[in-house]
Amino acid sequence: MTRPTIRDVAQKAGYSIATVSLVLNNKKVSIPQSTREKVWNAAETLNYRPNQLAVGMITKKTKVLGLIIPDNSNMFFAELSKAVEVAARHAGYNLIYGNTNNNPKRDLAYMRMFSDRQVEGIIFAKSSSHAMEDDEKSFQFIKSSAIPFVTIDRQVPGSGVYSVDLNHFKGGYLATRHLLELGHRRIGCYTGSLDLTTSNERLEGYRAALAEAKLPFEEALVFEGNYQLGRESAALAHFLNKGVSAIFACNDLMAFGLYREARYNKLNIPGDISIVGFDNIPFSDMMQPGLTTISQPIQEMGECAVKTLIKVINEEEPLDAYKSRIFEPRLLVRESTRKYENRG
Amino acid sequence: MTRPTIRDVAQKAGYSIATVSLVLNNKKVSIPQSTREKVWNAAETLNYRPNQLAVGMITKKTKVLGLIIPDNSNMFFAELSKAVEVAARHAGYNLIYGNTNNNPKRDLAYMRMFSDRQVEGIIFAKSSSHAMEDDEKSFQFIKSSAIPFVTIDRQVPGSGVYSVDLNHFKGGYLATRHLLELGHRRIGCYTGSLDLTTSNERLEGYRAALAEAKLPFEEALVFEGNYQLGRESAALAHFLNKGVSAIFACNDLMAFGLYREARYNKLNIPGDISIVGFDNIPFSDMMQPGLTTISQPIQEMGECAVKTLIKVINEEEPLDAYKSRIFEPRLLVRESTRKYENRG
Repeated sequence: MTRPTIRDVAQKAGYSIATVSLVLNNKKVSIPQSTREKVWNAAETLNYRPNQLAVGMITKKTKVLGLIIPDNSNMFFAELSKAVEVAARHAGYNLIYGNTNNNPKRDLAYMRMFSDRQVEGIIFAKSSSHAMEDDEKSFQFIKSSAIPFVTIDRQVPGSGVYSVDLNHFKGGYLATRHLLELGHRRIGCYTGSLDLTTSNERLEGYRAALAEAKLPFEEALVFEGNYQLGRESAALAHFLNKGVSAIFACNDLMAFGLYREARYNKLNIPGDISIVGFDNIPFSDMMQPGLTTISQPIQEMGECAVKTLIKVINEEEPLDAYKSRIFEPRLLVRESTRKYENRG
Repeated sequence: MTRPTIRDVAQKAGYSIATVSLVLNNKKVSIPQSTREKVWNAAETLNYRPNQLAVGMITKKTKVLGLIIPDNSNMFFAELSKAVEVAARHAGYNLIYGNTNNNPKRDLAYMRMFSDRQVEGIIFAKSSSHAMEDDEKSFQFIKSSAIPFVTIDRQVPGSGVYSVDLNHFKGGYLATRHLLELGHRRIGCYTGSLDLTTSNERLEGYRAALAEAKLPFEEALVFEGNYQLGRESAALAHFLNKGVSAIFACNDLMAFGLYREARYNKLNIPGDISIVGFDNIPFSDMMQPGLTTISQPIQEMGECAVKTLIKVINEEEPLDAYKSRIFEPRLLVRESTRKYENRG
């Protein structure tokens, strides 16, 4: 049961450790083909595999990437994590990952742990929190660390690191314009945590669409959520109280929370209220009614983050286009939105 | 930007490397408290952290566990992966993970990669496949490997490794008995891949409930799925053709596929057809109608797998109860099932 060493291979093949090492590492030295074959056969028979820890010590390459996400039970991050892991594997890397549960202290804790494990690079989607001091510590770590970082989805303002992101502003704009085109005038905006750039940008898109339609922006039509379940009961009550006929929920998960809440309140979607989501996670197609939403190319974004990170690791000068790569969202109309009817 | 070494700490503190090493490793030797403090201060100032690769070489402990799952975009495995990662972190371990997409060749490829990375143990949920030869190779690897394994959810028959699992039989029985108690007599069973023990056990539970109700088992009322989306269209058409009034879908994801398919066919759930799922993933509560399902304690199962694995790693003799730990499912009645009405 003990792991075979290079010494065992040498013994089995009948050559010196030096020769075996040259063969197994594919060194370009003059060694007869017959010798090479005997060494490879011995290695295969013994099921010999190089000790990656030892390889890591010498090459400083662990071939492991780190991924830090808020919550793998949020489908958006589950999809993203899968895309990142598969892309990493295709590039010869394995993935070590951590769930912060949106606790910013854990952002930093994972950065330190992964750094201790000598990961070659880290893909980072920060926690949502109002704890600026904790965020500042993470930013300092990223800036001072020798480990390359790529941020994804949630930016680290001013950090100057490579980032892969969506045009959140445009997403917010498209969602709101769709509702306006259906004739809705009082549109609620159920945001993510407003300390996240993604939430603010989506909200700005909402404002821009209203401005374009020459409608005033009303603070009272904005309700701050946190991209998670739990506030939908308060949110729906607030919006109904303000007389909205449609809601832009800034992610699909919160939209589904509103679905459940509407059901408890015997409200029909879209008969009584129209809802647009954001993300297009797979379940948005399975809900009844199918959720009209803003589609993010999660798969491509995950792949792009891995490619960018590996470019930085290999110290290839990335194209400028890679420094901050922005993907474009698109509107996907399903059945949760309907033309406004005046019931006054 | 270079990583500080123990040499730097020694220089900064003004002591020998040997002394610094003794202090940093908390060795119980007589060193004055003032010296200890100076060393710790120097280490902190320099942001010194031990090189885990070097630590790993000496202690043979990488403090990394591996997790192999079919698909992180399946909510069941996303939840499980999160539970495992969080439990691993609490025990001082990080998690490296891989998605096989139910390709059994990838089961083995990940086992080898993770073994090369010197993970201390692996939690393994096997691919569903009919490729017995590939499965056999994985079993051989598990048996001959020096790395401890714990299988979860999907067993590796005859491997004799530690396992954490659910009483799938009872789950299938409870789901079917519920439909029988509502008066349904023609009940379809939409199974997972029948090469997986979980699928067979759930199907056996279905058979047992029918037998208890003195109903014959009809092969024609079974439709084989694969625990993924994609076959629901064929499945629903098949079941309607056989005159079923209720379907036991062997996981929630396939149940949601049936929801979507029913919608396309203008069928009402539960008015036209009752559906029971299996897993109780979070979305089952948000679907309309809320999905009646069999609840698995995913969180506890993930934690149990980590605890068991760490016991084996530490060579603590695990309690017999840990060798094969079976959790009990329970029926959760929501709105997708209704009393049978004869519309003949």
